[in-house]
Amino acid sequence: MIENEIISLIKNADRIAILPHVSADGDAMGSSLALALALKKLNKKPMIYFEEEMPSIYGFLPGRELVRIYDEKPDKYGLVIALDTGDMERLGKRAAIFNDAGITVNIDHHPTNTQFGQVNLVNTDSAAVGEMIYRLIEMMGINIDKDMATCLYVAIATDTGGFRYSNTTPVTHRITADLINNGVDVSYISQTVFETVSLPKVKLMGKAIENLELFENGKLAIIKITDDLLKSVGAKEEDCDGIVNIGRNIEGVEVAVVIRQRAGGELKINFRSKNYVDVSVIANRHSGGGHKRAAGCTIKCGINEAKEMLIKEIREVL
Amino acid sequence: MIENEIISLIKNADRIAILPHVSADGDAMGSSLALALALKKLNKKPMIYFEEEMPSIYGFLPGRELVRIYDEKPDKYGLVIALDTGDMERLGKRAAIFNDAGITVNIDHHPTNTQFGQVNLVNTDSAAVGEMIYRLIEMMGINIDKDMATCLYVAIATDTGGFRYSNTTPVTHRITADLINNGVDVSYISQTVFETVSLPKVKLMGKAIENLELFENGKLAIIKITDDLLKSVGAKEEDCDGIVNIGRNIEGVEVAVVIRQRAGGELKINFRSKNYVDVSVIANRHSGGGHKRAAGCTIKCGINEAKEMLIKEIREVL
Repeated sequence: MIENEIISLIKNADRIAILPHVSADGDAMGSSLALALALKKLNKKPMIYFEEEMPSIYGFLPGRELVRIYDEKPDKYGLVIALDTGDMERLGKRAAIFNDAGITVNIDHHPTNTQFGQVNLVNTDSAAVGEMIYRLIEMMGINIDKDMATCLYVAIATDTGGFRYSNTTPVTHRITADLINNGVDVSYISQTVFETVSLPKVKLMGKAIENLELFENGKLAIIKITDDLLKSVGAKEEDCDGIVNIGRNIEGVEVAVVIRQRAGGELKINFRSKNYVDVSVIANRHSGGGHKRAAGCTIKCGINEAKEMLIKEIREVL
Repeated sequence: MIENEIISLIKNADRIAILPHVSADGDAMGSSLALALALKKLNKKPMIYFEEEMPSIYGFLPGRELVRIYDEKPDKYGLVIALDTGDMERLGKRAAIFNDAGITVNIDHHPTNTQFGQVNLVNTDSAAVGEMIYRLIEMMGINIDKDMATCLYVAIATDTGGFRYSNTTPVTHRITADLINNGVDVSYISQTVFETVSLPKVKLMGKAIENLELFENGKLAIIKITDDLLKSVGAKEEDCDGIVNIGRNIEGVEVAVVIRQRAGGELKINFRSKNYVDVSVIANRHSGGGHKRAAGCTIKCGINEAKEMLIKEIREVL
């Protein structure tokens, strides 16, 4: 069993580096912190390297003292563990740490994982890497304390969209039951991670709703976001994430589109569908890509021209 | 054990009426439908009476053929079971069915329950009555099929705010694991119940954001909603539910207030706080009530006058 091999590597190691993927999300961060806290209990010397600063909403996570933002290559690590990382590219500059390691381990749940480690534990049935780390910590015979439980809870809750995505399994809920049993503050974490929104983002949502237009008997929702609009509310590019869901979540809407006009005139298009339209087909037509229910592409033309073109294309599949 | 007493009453009954509380929510509806479906498996004749029509977002719930909207008092039932109902008043007009029953059972989780049944099963540790019905169905030796699991999942997921409220326990998650094992479509239900919003409600949210004002260094958010504003977006009174959370969820906000001006000039005030302010104190000052983090009151004065007064009062506790 690969888990046992990894545990034996850990037991024989001293300094251990943990590498989540670039732009670490809740699962990447929570899994890394939980594993590092567990390794401390075994008197190991773990260190987590992030590519960027941690987003402020995750500031409450225990174990932050074990995190370094990557600056220059540290001394060689005997064991390096990549977490939630599908391929080497997703390690960014920290690939230098990975390539310099005594031995490398790759723990992940992405179906596209390239098995880039010397030892690879890839479980695509796991909703989150947090589930895999939970199991590993249990197998090492370490009691999951409140701090580890908090990190694992964040990992699992975020990667399942708060237990709402189809990747949520009975195992997800059974593990979560145990984590809450170990002291997780469910309401504080949920409020902080899922409900807190910055003022510019809220204002952007307001403007997006103001601009929202419905077509095709309310089955198609289109939102346009220009640079001027972003500036007018002090919002950043990343605040546009998720705006497309405002349209998709409206009763009766099947396809939602966000047309984001960027400096230089390029249009970034974001598609979402609810039940039956395959939006990846439309995105592909414009050299984009994605999944049936979420896709995107880039178009070079005027914003209104793009709108009319997309209405026509989507009309045919509604 | 009271559960056994209830099971024996069920086994000896033929026609059984189930009564959720007025304005039935997800837990009241889901628990009622799951229990009725289970009783069918025992070859009983269950019927659920609702006070009002079911909200359309719950239209997918199995067992709807066992629901009647109360019109006039039906023939006497040997056994009547009230679900999720704190007191007789919450039965509305259907108290007539309850009062006419051979024997009455009251299954609930509200701490304020008045023990109004002949047999009372009140478990305040349960996050949802759905948890209690799950246990009862298991104790009756009935296999929980996909339909019952779907109803119980909706009951539990809604009363825990999607597993986010502090009432969510390890038991909640363990039961949910089992329900998913029995075939619940997590992603469809989550999308339908938690994410679908009507167009007027989305537009009202947009207007609310437009009107939102911050005071006291961004710690106090106030939103004003007039009748004209409601009309302008075609929204109904109930669409105002939850608008106060838009303010509360903003980063840095501690207290959020919605001032709802109603025809006749009366102001309905809604308070929410995030971490430390006890808003029930302010609501009480104006003859209102509620909890530390959620309270309300009614004030008779001009909308701007009320705003200035509330800013002053809240400033002192921020």
